[in-house]
Amino acid sequence: MKTKSEIVVMKFGGTSVDNTDKIKKVAERAIRAKDNGKDVVVVVSAMGDTTDNLISLASKISDVPNKREMDMLLSTGEQVSIALIAMAIQAKGYECVSLTGNQAGIFTDEVYSNAKITHINNARLLKELKNGKIIIVAGFQGITADGNISTLGRGGSDTTAVALAAVLKAEYCEIYTDVDGVYTADPNIVRQARKIDKLSYEEMLETASSGAKVLHLRAVEFAKNHDVVLSVRSSFNENEGTWVMDDNKKIERMERPVVTGVTYDTNQIKITIFGLADKPGIAAKLFGEFALENVSVDLIVQNVSEKGIATISFTVKNEDLNEAKRVIESLKMGLDFTEADIDSNVAKVSLVGAGMQTHAGVAAKMFEILANENINIEMISTSPIRISCVIRKDKVKTAVKVLHSGFGLDKERGL
Amino acid sequence: MKTKSEIVVMKFGGTSVDNTDKIKKVAERAIRAKDNGKDVVVVVSAMGDTTDNLISLASKISDVPNKREMDMLLSTGEQVSIALIAMAIQAKGYECVSLTGNQAGIFTDEVYSNAKITHINNARLLKELKNGKIIIVAGFQGITADGNISTLGRGGSDTTAVALAAVLKAEYCEIYTDVDGVYTADPNIVRQARKIDKLSYEEMLETASSGAKVLHLRAVEFAKNHDVVLSVRSSFNENEGTWVMDDNKKIERMERPVVTGVTYDTNQIKITIFGLADKPGIAAKLFGEFALENVSVDLIVQNVSEKGIATISFTVKNEDLNEAKRVIESLKMGLDFTEADIDSNVAKVSLVGAGMQTHAGVAAKMFEILANENINIEMISTSPIRISCVIRKDKVKTAVKVLHSGFGLDKERGL
Repeated sequence: MKTKSEIVVMKFGGTSVDNTDKIKKVAERAIRAKDNGKDVVVVVSAMGDTTDNLISLASKISDVPNKREMDMLLSTGEQVSIALIAMAIQAKGYECVSLTGNQAGIFTDEVYSNAKITHINNARLLKELKNGKIIIVAGFQGITADGNISTLGRGGSDTTAVALAAVLKAEYCEIYTDVDGVYTADPNIVRQARKIDKLSYEEMLETASSGAKVLHLRAVEFAKNHDVVLSVRSSFNENEGTWVMDDNKKIERMERPVVTGVTYDTNQIKITIFGLADKPGIAAKLFGEFALENVSVDLIVQNVSEKGIATISFTVKNEDLNEAKRVIESLKMGLDFTEADIDSNVAKVSLVGAGMQTHAGVAAKMFEILANENINIEMISTSPIRISCVIRKDKVKTAVKVLHSGFGLDKERGL
Repeated sequence: MKTKSEIVVMKFGGTSVDNTDKIKKVAERAIRAKDNGKDVVVVVSAMGDTTDNLISLASKISDVPNKREMDMLLSTGEQVSIALIAMAIQAKGYECVSLTGNQAGIFTDEVYSNAKITHINNARLLKELKNGKIIIVAGFQGITADGNISTLGRGGSDTTAVALAAVLKAEYCEIYTDVDGVYTADPNIVRQARKIDKLSYEEMLETASSGAKVLHLRAVEFAKNHDVVLSVRSSFNENEGTWVMDDNKKIERMERPVVTGVTYDTNQIKITIFGLADKPGIAAKLFGEFALENVSVDLIVQNVSEKGIATISFTVKNEDLNEAKRVIESLKMGLDFTEADIDSNVAKVSLVGAGMQTHAGVAAKMFEILANENINIEMISTSPIRISCVIRKDKVKTAVKVLHSGFGLDKERGL
């Protein structure tokens, strides 16, 4: 697969480096890639619980710690990891250098704790690679134009890895995790779940956004936009993982499967606003307020009853519940509605598959399968390659199982 | 004392910030200085055991960790402290910004783990002070011209503080520690020991180099060379500490005391080389080898016996013992000597005082006081303002006590 160059980027998450033995394992893996003739860039997260411990330390100091200072604090976690991995590689007699986000030339905007990469100056990276060194880069962090340390927010290390792969025109970017790859469903729920060999960026995006935790949405988007080939694989074995790449160019399949996988998400709260005056601009005002408070709204369903009175239901993430409540409270002043209901006993189950674009009847079949199990569908949302249903939380495991088998994923890939 | 400007630098060591309660106390102290109209720069070390814990982590990875990577690792300790202190100050409603060594513009040479400050670019510091912010700077660390993180070695945070005070032309630099100041002797040994109000740089240098741990030698030298007024004081109370400043300009005393204090150092190994051929260049070769291996030799005494055969005794620090043994082993090849003896049951007791320069008989009196207690003097070394004797280690407490009382320090200052 020498599509671009001999550079590979390998990203290891916190669970892959949570003690010194695991750190040595990461070092060995980087060395093996180097021995195989690759130029190696390793991106790494903070060790195990480090970030949580630092957050807890900060919470003893301040209820609302300043975000710039929080980034100053949290960025130390990755810095510890890169130094230790570099030492482990050097102890094996290989040349290695660790680089902070700053030193790796990763520039971001000034949205501390959730910064976006603006550009990467790859001069130092190329220089160190040219000198034959294995490079260890601190994930999750960057530097603002003013020289302040920033962090990229959730999934930040994945994004760092993909961004470096893009700017270095790497052959591919390996995301090491604690599972073997992307599965047709959560193996903890569906015993027959199978690893998917190849996925398109779009399928991976829908899979990630509909609940699978294996790869961060933002990193997949970045990979798609910059045509970075991803490999999601286990840091604990040598199994081939799941390749994520451009659909048309690289995935060769006998027949496109209709459904690639079943995902679920129990991290959902359903909010229903009753008795809304159905006037133009109401929805914009409602969801505009949520956006202002950085509460992401997922599914939205609106029913208009008689007399111009509307009911709107939508879902937000569990962790945004308090923010959402505050927004609703403040909306009571400016918006005309009778009641707001908050329901946390919901879950979302989704089918993902690029083949849906050319196969009719997938949604109908999904609804039928759920109906056969007496699972009531409360909200529905679709994209060209995904169908999601909000159901009662206690039905979600059953739903995943029956959909996995109903769409033939137990036996082989696709419908 | 508005000698230079309204800027003060306050340095807090690891024991002053080893939990979040103490960090809040440091924040309060910085705020009080700000409320008193000062521009405040705080320099801080890593929390309590952080550095030791990081070193132990590295030792699990590599027996001889790369020094650049070690600095990458250790510098995170101070970075955690500065972020937390900044948060604590902000929580009280004050403007504050934390800066790493890099961000504070502290440039060093490339001698990782023991780097020297080459220059400081104070632009960012002045900008933040102008904006009314309290600045928290990570001690102990800097950046090389190539953008690599370096650390300053032992006592590095003291040096950072003094260097910043120099480059900012600060009014003074406060060194907060766990004692009230510099004492006439260790209060744990001499109950009557008293805090010294004012010391010259030279006295402080001799005091620090002869065993008192309160302030690092290198920082005192830096302060002397750049005319930075120091205040050594406790972080646990409001007592006035010990001022260290230029002797001629600022210390007003009725009469110069002859002896300012008694210090001791049990961290000493005495090495004796017997049967050395007494040829020119022998001492240069011997001590040249120690210097090459970075082993600091303290006292040196040479006796020439008959027939051109010499005996040389010298002292090194405990922690350099293994290095010293290696040097002696390697010297056996090139140098002609019969035997080397290593004695770790020694200690050094010293008298320090600027007044010695103009008072004769201090050494004689010291020897007499020790002789009266049957304490044998094995080696003697003098400077214009210090006399040191190497004695048996088990006699050192007695020696400190009798010298303290013999030179009248129990009652009042000086002879």
